[in-house]
Amino acid sequence: MGNDKKLTLLDCTVRDGGLINKWQFTDDMVRRVFQAVNAAGLEYMEIGYRASEKMFPPGEYGPWRFSKDDKIREIIGDTPLNTKLGVMVDIGRVESEDFASADESPLSFVRVATYLKDIEKAISLANLVHDLGYESFINIMAISTVNDYDLAKGLASVEERTSVTAVTVVDSFGALLEENVKHLINTFKSNLSSKAVGFHGHNNLQLGFANTLTAISDGATFCDATITGIGRAAGNCPLELMLSYLKDPQFSIEPILQVIQDVFIDLRKEIEWGYLLPYMITGMLNEHPRVAIALRKSDRKDHYADFFRELTTPECYEN
Amino acid sequence: MGNDKKLTLLDCTVRDGGLINKWQFTDDMVRRVFQAVNAAGLEYMEIGYRASEKMFPPGEYGPWRFSKDDKIREIIGDTPLNTKLGVMVDIGRVESEDFASADESPLSFVRVATYLKDIEKAISLANLVHDLGYESFINIMAISTVNDYDLAKGLASVEERTSVTAVTVVDSFGALLEENVKHLINTFKSNLSSKAVGFHGHNNLQLGFANTLTAISDGATFCDATITGIGRAAGNCPLELMLSYLKDPQFSIEPILQVIQDVFIDLRKEIEWGYLLPYMITGMLNEHPRVAIALRKSDRKDHYADFFRELTTPECYEN
Repeated sequence: MGNDKKLTLLDCTVRDGGLINKWQFTDDMVRRVFQAVNAAGLEYMEIGYRASEKMFPPGEYGPWRFSKDDKIREIIGDTPLNTKLGVMVDIGRVESEDFASADESPLSFVRVATYLKDIEKAISLANLVHDLGYESFINIMAISTVNDYDLAKGLASVEERTSVTAVTVVDSFGALLEENVKHLINTFKSNLSSKAVGFHGHNNLQLGFANTLTAISDGATFCDATITGIGRAAGNCPLELMLSYLKDPQFSIEPILQVIQDVFIDLRKEIEWGYLLPYMITGMLNEHPRVAIALRKSDRKDHYADFFRELTTPECYEN
Repeated sequence: MGNDKKLTLLDCTVRDGGLINKWQFTDDMVRRVFQAVNAAGLEYMEIGYRASEKMFPPGEYGPWRFSKDDKIREIIGDTPLNTKLGVMVDIGRVESEDFASADESPLSFVRVATYLKDIEKAISLANLVHDLGYESFINIMAISTVNDYDLAKGLASVEERTSVTAVTVVDSFGALLEENVKHLINTFKSNLSSKAVGFHGHNNLQLGFANTLTAISDGATFCDATITGIGRAAGNCPLELMLSYLKDPQFSIEPILQVIQDVFIDLRKEIEWGYLLPYMITGMLNEHPRVAIALRKSDRKDHYADFFRELTTPECYEN
């Protein structure tokens, strides 16, 4: 690594994986993931989103869209915690009444996901959960679409007005190349003197892991990964690759390989994630994967060349 | 790119892909791949191995283990060639009588694959095909297992005694990380003043593409790729990613996406390649993938954690 700061790993298997199936995982699956991550020695596990049931109909959305405290207690049982548990929240999809104070909750951290344009709302929400006693974080999504001026301004505001532990570069479109990662990590570092910088990669260009290594080498110290890289569309940086790379005696890869063998082989037969050409195409075009996700749900799911032509011929643009 | 030299791309879809199924591809498949690569504007296509039929029983091995001149003429038909066609040869598996002189062959280049320990034999074979009129190359396999002293000596011999166009770093085990790639490319460059340096990545750690970009950035100018990354075990750097990254008007990605849509979706239902946990495990252990390939052919194909324990417990070592 190119720096001396300790690297912190966060698992977001259930949270990001749930974007594929509206968080309809069985309790058994979530419990096995929790047990594996806890046994592997990770510092942080983001177990789901917290959202208001007023905004998302329970039933259509599974339990990890809401990640209620009681549900989390059910999963933990009497397991001693090595790993801090937390949730992600989106701007405008959660209310203060959705949180108990931290000392009455099994959760210890909350990450606020935001687009740069909503950074001021994210700051308010991060401060709200911080005041309730949670460790707070901000993740800036769709980072491949922002300009440097707006980004520096937003980061300065986060630096000045929050107590977040880390601010994370989120490559939502899986569009970043090495040089982009370096530029962004350095922009974050230079505007965030008192916060750690994080990185959350996607695998559209088969660079989820490689970009995470680049981010670490340039000074990111808080990195996200998921088991088998599960996550929306092309998925994320695989946790098993991070652990095999780090070779840190603090971590154990074996519980992760075991849960892959026991759970993820079958899960992969039910739901789809990982590098596929439609996601590569949206990644290279720096677009949200939603059109590619729609293609994969259609009867034209493997018509990659047609899809490429549709996205790149001028008729597609709304001028 | 970190240098001004023009990058040359070589497609080895049929050659490396054939390692999966003993080169039992249909003529239609090979013809479509050739047409796509030729239409995409690549400079080089390695269409198979050339080997002696005395050593490999035809029937068990498909046509692209031998890549006979007449067979290649059948594939080309009357298509005008944008792309130079060539073959790979292994030390000791081909004889001089297996080659016509280049002016009587549809082939224009031959690449000699070798382990470093056989470099003197590789030099002889490269010189033999060069004297027959073919453009010659040397690929040094299993490069993650060689020491710097032997490597420098071998490269100096290649530099002095051959007319090869390029010498290629071959990460056979898919074990190289960025820093290893940089070190190797620079070692090759400093010992090969008159030859280009090439790179052939494997995807065991999801770094096939990323390592190829690193190699280019450090001065490699001759890079291998395959359509969809097809190749033994975890496969190779995907050609479609290289073309989408390069955005070079000389190349066209559309024929490659079309042949993926038309051929590779169905092919992937018959044979397996790409990032899978057993290949990740051999990659991280810097081992040949053969034990992982054997696992994938057994009824324990998804027993990843068991496989990891078997390879890493002391009983496995022959002391």
